[in-house]
Amino acid sequence: MAIPMLRASAPPGHLGALFHFNVKKPLHLQRLPCSPTELNPVLQTQADEVRSESGLSLSVGTHLIPHPNKVDKGGEDAFLVSGCNGGVIAVADGVSGWAEQNVDPSLFSKELMVHALSLLGDEEVNYNPRMLLKEAHAATSSVGSATVVVAMLERDGILRIANVGDCGLRVVRGGQIIFSTSPQEHYFDCPYQLSSESVGQTYQDAVVSTVEVIEKDTVVMGSDGLFDNVFDHEIVSTLAKHGDVSEAAKAVADLAREHSVDLSYDSPYSIEARTRGLDVPVWKKALGFKLTGGKLDDITVIVGRVVGPQESSDTR
Amino acid sequence: MAIPMLRASAPPGHLGALFHFNVKKPLHLQRLPCSPTELNPVLQTQADEVRSESGLSLSVGTHLIPHPNKVDKGGEDAFLVSGCNGGVIAVADGVSGWAEQNVDPSLFSKELMVHALSLLGDEEVNYNPRMLLKEAHAATSSVGSATVVVAMLERDGILRIANVGDCGLRVVRGGQIIFSTSPQEHYFDCPYQLSSESVGQTYQDAVVSTVEVIEKDTVVMGSDGLFDNVFDHEIVSTLAKHGDVSEAAKAVADLAREHSVDLSYDSPYSIEARTRGLDVPVWKKALGFKLTGGKLDDITVIVGRVVGPQESSDTR
Repeated sequence: MAIPMLRASAPPGHLGALFHFNVKKPLHLQRLPCSPTELNPVLQTQADEVRSESGLSLSVGTHLIPHPNKVDKGGEDAFLVSGCNGGVIAVADGVSGWAEQNVDPSLFSKELMVHALSLLGDEEVNYNPRMLLKEAHAATSSVGSATVVVAMLERDGILRIANVGDCGLRVVRGGQIIFSTSPQEHYFDCPYQLSSESVGQTYQDAVVSTVEVIEKDTVVMGSDGLFDNVFDHEIVSTLAKHGDVSEAAKAVADLAREHSVDLSYDSPYSIEARTRGLDVPVWKKALGFKLTGGKLDDITVIVGRVVGPQESSDTR
Repeated sequence: MAIPMLRASAPPGHLGALFHFNVKKPLHLQRLPCSPTELNPVLQTQADEVRSESGLSLSVGTHLIPHPNKVDKGGEDAFLVSGCNGGVIAVADGVSGWAEQNVDPSLFSKELMVHALSLLGDEEVNYNPRMLLKEAHAATSSVGSATVVVAMLERDGILRIANVGDCGLRVVRGGQIIFSTSPQEHYFDCPYQLSSESVGQTYQDAVVSTVEVIEKDTVVMGSDGLFDNVFDHEIVSTLAKHGDVSEAAKAVADLAREHSVDLSYDSPYSIEARTRGLDVPVWKKALGFKLTGGKLDDITVIVGRVVGPQESSDTR
């Protein structure tokens, strides 16, 4: 079977006009395998059960806006939030090229996240994000592929991250980005991806990193629908306006959606496309036109604030 | 004493014309506190003495080009290379604003590196880059301040990094950047810095991160004179042309120097300056001019290739 390594996405500068937007709830995976939970702040309350008094944890808000053409099925992104240990967050982005082979690209990403969630307490995984990807990938039987990022917070403030492809994570401290993941790709718009086929990447291809976080740091995780449409400095300035993590996640996702449908916006994606030699025809360029526009895509945003035991108790 | 937190540097777009360039050797700190060494490849040979057969290590090349006005004293950057454990590299960049108070900005950065080198085997440091910054900073008696980045490779492939300010580090794998540090700053051109004065930053402000590296990965470390003048994709393409780490370090530094004196080059620094609202006067802008140019500065480049025991034996 030929593998659709290429992500089929609307090229920048050729985006649709404004559309009827109707957000439908996607598959949200938010429970605690260590002890069941739901959305923040319930997450915080229950996570306290497994947290030492001196430990750090994540207070999490999420927001997912599906691609306008994929609203009915909730898009092809999936994510998980768990209060296990100091908190676990992950995003998987189903590679849309599979649709050309009549495969629903959302199945792989969603199944991957279901297995990841169920494996969090597994002895083999042992709070190691690379091992989590290995076990969750092995358990996934759907045909398809996905980019994925997972981050696990230990109570002493070590945030462990494993990343395959172009989902991403930022850590914001004192109004500036102090840590970023870097995307991996085969070529422009074709990211590394965990796949049902042997030609894809594996857990061994994940970039594994850690960063020491402290109380009041903010972790922002998202699919490429976020990072292709919003610059880092815009993430920082948007976070500054919203103290509540759920409101912050919604505001960042809304900004990404707004840019994604703006034909004149010079997005990170369009700038990158021009850097790679993609642009409008020469005659248009001579007239001063250039390739611009956001990128239509599923947009997933997870905002996690690092809180100490006192603050997490206060949110009960 | 008032603290010169501002880095006094030539604004982009107002750089000097071509100059007589005469590189003078700066203070190079390249020995092994665990067992004495010199420059690569001697570093490799001697590092083998303390390396397990299965361990990874760094094969290192370095190149420093002083600011053209600071050639006589070798610039204000300092760096160290050691074969201790799997290899240690560090860069410190003396904050030039101190010159306005008749303080030689190179003294602090050089003394900081001297102490860091001598402390590498220290029990308190224990291969922890944050602790190394703490101890080296405490031991430094010169007046001044410096940005600094240090990276320590463990033999199992864990690269531990501590960073204060706008020196930086990249990890390149398979022709792409898979890891980057992020600069910290108070405001544009005023980075976080370890200082002789209490108003400066400390080891507690360092961003501490790790990344798992594998054989054939390339680590590129540098002062802001590198990253303000060379884009990441240029670092990658330059590395691809040079198998030898010393040649690679020289080629990357030469590219940074070339851009630093190019008035028309749209450098990372000039793009960042425009993003922050700095630009040419409005009447010039109306005529199509924009603020461009590289940034004159000391340029330090360290290139470290991750090698296994077989390859390091081959270089003996």
